[in-house]
Amino acid sequence: MPDTLANRAAAAPLTIRMHAEDNVAIVANDGGLPPGSALPGGPVLRERVPQGHKVALVDLPAGAAVLRYGVPIGYAVQDIPAGSWVHERLLQMPAARGLDDLPMATRGAAPLPPLEGFTFEGYRNPDGSVGTRNLLAITQTVQCVAGVTAFAVQRIQAELLPQYPNVDGVVALEHGYGCGVAIDAPDAAIPIRTLRHISQNPNFGGEVMVVSLGCEKLQPERLFPSEGIPIQDRRGTGSAGPLAVPLLPGGEPRSGAGGVVCLQDEAHVGFMSMVDSILRQAEVHLKRLNARRRETVPASELVVGVQCGGSDAFSGVTANPAVGFCTDLLVRAGASVMFSETTEVRDGIAQLTARAATPEVAQALVREMAWYDDYLKRGGVDRSANTTPGNKKGGLSNIVEKAMGSIVKSGSAPIANVLSPGEKLSAKGLTYAATPASDFICGTLQLAAGMNLHVFTTGRGTPYGLAAVPVIKVATRSDLARRWHDLMDINAGTIADGQASIEDVGWALFRFMLDVASGRQKTWAERWKLHNQLVLFNPAPVT
Amino acid sequence: MPDTLANRAAAAPLTIRMHAEDNVAIVANDGGLPPGSALPGGPVLRERVPQGHKVALVDLPAGAAVLRYGVPIGYAVQDIPAGSWVHERLLQMPAARGLDDLPMATRGAAPLPPLEGFTFEGYRNPDGSVGTRNLLAITQTVQCVAGVTAFAVQRIQAELLPQYPNVDGVVALEHGYGCGVAIDAPDAAIPIRTLRHISQNPNFGGEVMVVSLGCEKLQPERLFPSEGIPIQDRRGTGSAGPLAVPLLPGGEPRSGAGGVVCLQDEAHVGFMSMVDSILRQAEVHLKRLNARRRETVPASELVVGVQCGGSDAFSGVTANPAVGFCTDLLVRAGASVMFSETTEVRDGIAQLTARAATPEVAQALVREMAWYDDYLKRGGVDRSANTTPGNKKGGLSNIVEKAMGSIVKSGSAPIANVLSPGEKLSAKGLTYAATPASDFICGTLQLAAGMNLHVFTTGRGTPYGLAAVPVIKVATRSDLARRWHDLMDINAGTIADGQASIEDVGWALFRFMLDVASGRQKTWAERWKLHNQLVLFNPAPVT
Ligand SMILES: [Ca+2]
Ligand SMILES: [Ca+2]
Ligand SMILES: [Ca+2]
Ligand SMILES: [Ca+2]
Ligand SMILES: [Ca+2]
Repeated sequence: MPDTLANRAAAAPLTIRMHAEDNVAIVANDGGLPPGSALPGGPVLRERVPQGHKVALVDLPAGAAVLRYGVPIGYAVQDIPAGSWVHERLLQMPAARGLDDLPMATRGAAPLPPLEGFTFEGYRNPDGSVGTRNLLAITQTVQCVAGVTAFAVQRIQAELLPQYPNVDGVVALEHGYGCGVAIDAPDAAIPIRTLRHISQNPNFGGEVMVVSLGCEKLQPERLFPSEGIPIQDRRGTGSAGPLAVPLLPGGEPRSGAGGVVCLQDEAHVGFMSMVDSILRQAEVHLKRLNARRRETVPASELVVGVQCGGSDAFSGVTANPAVGFCTDLLVRAGASVMFSETTEVRDGIAQLTARAATPEVAQALVREMAWYDDYLKRGGVDRSANTTPGNKKGGLSNIVEKAMGSIVKSGSAPIANVLSPGEKLSAKGLTYAATPASDFICGTLQLAAGMNLHVFTTGRGTPYGLAAVPVIKVATRSDLARRWHDLMDINAGTIADGQASIEDVGWALFRFMLDVASGRQKTWAERWKLHNQLVLFNPAPVT
Repeated sequence: MPDTLANRAAAAPLTIRMHAEDNVAIVANDGGLPPGSALPGGPVLRERVPQGHKVALVDLPAGAAVLRYGVPIGYAVQDIPAGSWVHERLLQMPAARGLDDLPMATRGAAPLPPLEGFTFEGYRNPDGSVGTRNLLAITQTVQCVAGVTAFAVQRIQAELLPQYPNVDGVVALEHGYGCGVAIDAPDAAIPIRTLRHISQNPNFGGEVMVVSLGCEKLQPERLFPSEGIPIQDRRGTGSAGPLAVPLLPGGEPRSGAGGVVCLQDEAHVGFMSMVDSILRQAEVHLKRLNARRRETVPASELVVGVQCGGSDAFSGVTANPAVGFCTDLLVRAGASVMFSETTEVRDGIAQLTARAATPEVAQALVREMAWYDDYLKRGGVDRSANTTPGNKKGGLSNIVEKAMGSIVKSGSAPIANVLSPGEKLSAKGLTYAATPASDFICGTLQLAAGMNLHVFTTGRGTPYGLAAVPVIKVATRSDLARRWHDLMDINAGTIADGQASIEDVGWALFRFMLDVASGRQKTWAERWKLHNQLVLFNPAPVT
């Protein structure tokens, strides 16, 4: 009888251990496991253990370090026999970690062995970067121009794009910044460089097209101070006066005549003259973009941003570890991988500084965490602002354990580099790109860093997507993958089901990434055109 | 010969005095006026005076108060004979104004005489408010759902709206808030109540429709804690657990079954099931909205938000004073008018507190200014963050004079009420609604306050518009009105040209407002569908 078989299959004890050194594992079965359950290759349960909660794999004497993700997440307050439920009352919590006396680059792990022979089909850019999509981006200096730009984008889609079939689409880089902001505040550098660097994302082919109002605080020269995009300006009343027309370092104007369309230009008479200016400028760029062709490039040209959102008890057990395994594959293949989400990893800082490749990298990690601690304090909150009420109920004993479940996305490679928010990435290997955990803000900052592929794990489910870069979504549970079958790209729930290993899913993700990067596959968010807003990280005041 | 005639017309001296007590006026002529020019009804110029700069109308002995907008903007440092250029070096600047020892409700002006008999055709709502448009608004609890909602809105527009011809459109209330934010921070109340109150804008007919993800920090119950919109919830994994289904105070569910569509609802299988849920819910609201009919209501039902953006030297001389005159008409007609832009009016605080109707109102003004001073200080800047380099060149001697040019939009009525950012307005008469000067943030907060009509003055020109409320744009100069003939609704430049008085333009604006409110006229931004983003004011940290 199928029902009975299914019930028996569901009842077969499933546990997940995250690291070879771990002395606890978590119970994967729906509804947990009853006393007497014989764990595969381990002890018999002495009591009921709820789903997502920890069981002792060996006898843990009082004072013993309880190891999960290969790190101590606490210390046994009494003898805990093998097969016991290791709930949070049996653990002495590590104190919230300050930023002094951290282990700095102490792990000294050997570099991972190289992984060769993997390639994808990408668009090689003049600056050496590689795009995975071929998009016309329209940079906006200020929210004021968003309505006119949106109107122009509709006409570009209807009238111009059909003539340029190699171009995948047009992306208006709309945002809420640019005026009514304290543009000289110490922290204003973050939103400004974020916008600058997003314009230079590899998927935009080095074509920088700008729509400006004219009187905004974020003048085009301020947005691109040294980039030298040509600015055709006839703003008689502009406070900035006639603008210089600097050239690119190579001496060649990147965008032809007039890389910037200024709506207040006195030559504009009537709304349609503004729209027509944008279309004319777009066509200059579309012609060049249309000539781009995919070519075979090594997997080392991937720049992958990983993050999680809508997390559940299995995020740190299935999807994030599978992403972590894939991160190692990418690092071994010579690619760039960024992990982020400062408020989520903050309490695992000691693991991060230990993993830093050099003391300088460890110092940079501390610098970013200290900056964020201070930023939260200025706003009257502390880092508990990130925790959720469901954490302990879901089996997470404390903040270190929670942070490790997020950090596990970063795999095991040494941390080779640290980026401040909005900075552009130039290094290979594993980078900590400091960003808030907010899905939209993290994604926006990873775009600015130059990612050409985005991996997003989710347990509760989110339809998150970006217009500029493909987003691969990984489900933590099979139930979510089933219900959201046309929104989730990869199901890591098979790990909890006992049907696949972390390595299996990590490899499947790696191969899928090469297919998506090559344009052979589209993500579900791309197929439905689900795009979240750019949300800038602006820690400075508005005015 | 027409050329000569035109030149002679252009050369006819034009000056503008803002207030009957003023002892200076400004020169309106392009290029300024040469020495020897005889001012209409005033002295002969002793020297060249640039456009937008001040001329002494009478002899000003050393130490005399120089009055503009009826207030002292400085003191003569030497004898200044009538007909002299009163440049900033001849004025002793008032010190930047602290918040102590202010005149509190000292002006004691008589209330303005009532103005009766003016009406418009509006949509009367169950709560007594009146809409000027008939829109379906879709509230979003978090940015995560924006892509799915945008997809659904396209289908609503294509499939449903044609069946409901009395509905003017559908507005997705997209924003960057809702998750990844310090939702318990002291300042988080501002973005949360802003979203809540925008959902209740009179143009949305009291129909509150919400799309939620499910796991976001801004749960629907938190967004509408006491409003009692029904929530149909089958989120088995939701941390909030099964939700209560509170009713409206009247006991009648406002939105039929399921005012909230939760994407993580376990009943949703596949992307289209989410879209279909949104469409089903939309139809419930569209049916009721379609039954709304315009009826004749008194002008006192207008709730007008005024602001300026892209200002120039004539903003405080033509457009803003004309708006100020119109503000008085509205107040006389019993309507609600909000003026805002804390960073722009901050240095005129003494004029505002003096004009307060009561000491309590004056105290509330001081409270809002003090809060903003502190907010800027936390971010490492001060209120000079608002000033622009072109101010002095344009003839503005100091920050008080600049502030008065913005405050003049508020007319002459006593300030009857003060709103904190994101609060909802319930008072008639003149209100100071504290907001940043940022056009998009100010507009978003005035929407939350309940405005049903928006007036926006601009000198440099901006295509600003909102999806929820008509925006009437007033140009400060005829040249802008000519070039942007299909973006500017009212030309106040005729005041500088000597062709119309401030009163003429103020009355024209008042009558145009009644036409726009009635739907007999559309604004240019409406015709082109130019919509700026909602940009929330979130002084709290993101996480
Ligand atoms: Ca996360
Ligand atoms: Ca989320
Ligand atoms: Ca995230
Ligand atoms: Ca303004
Ligand atoms: Ca403004």
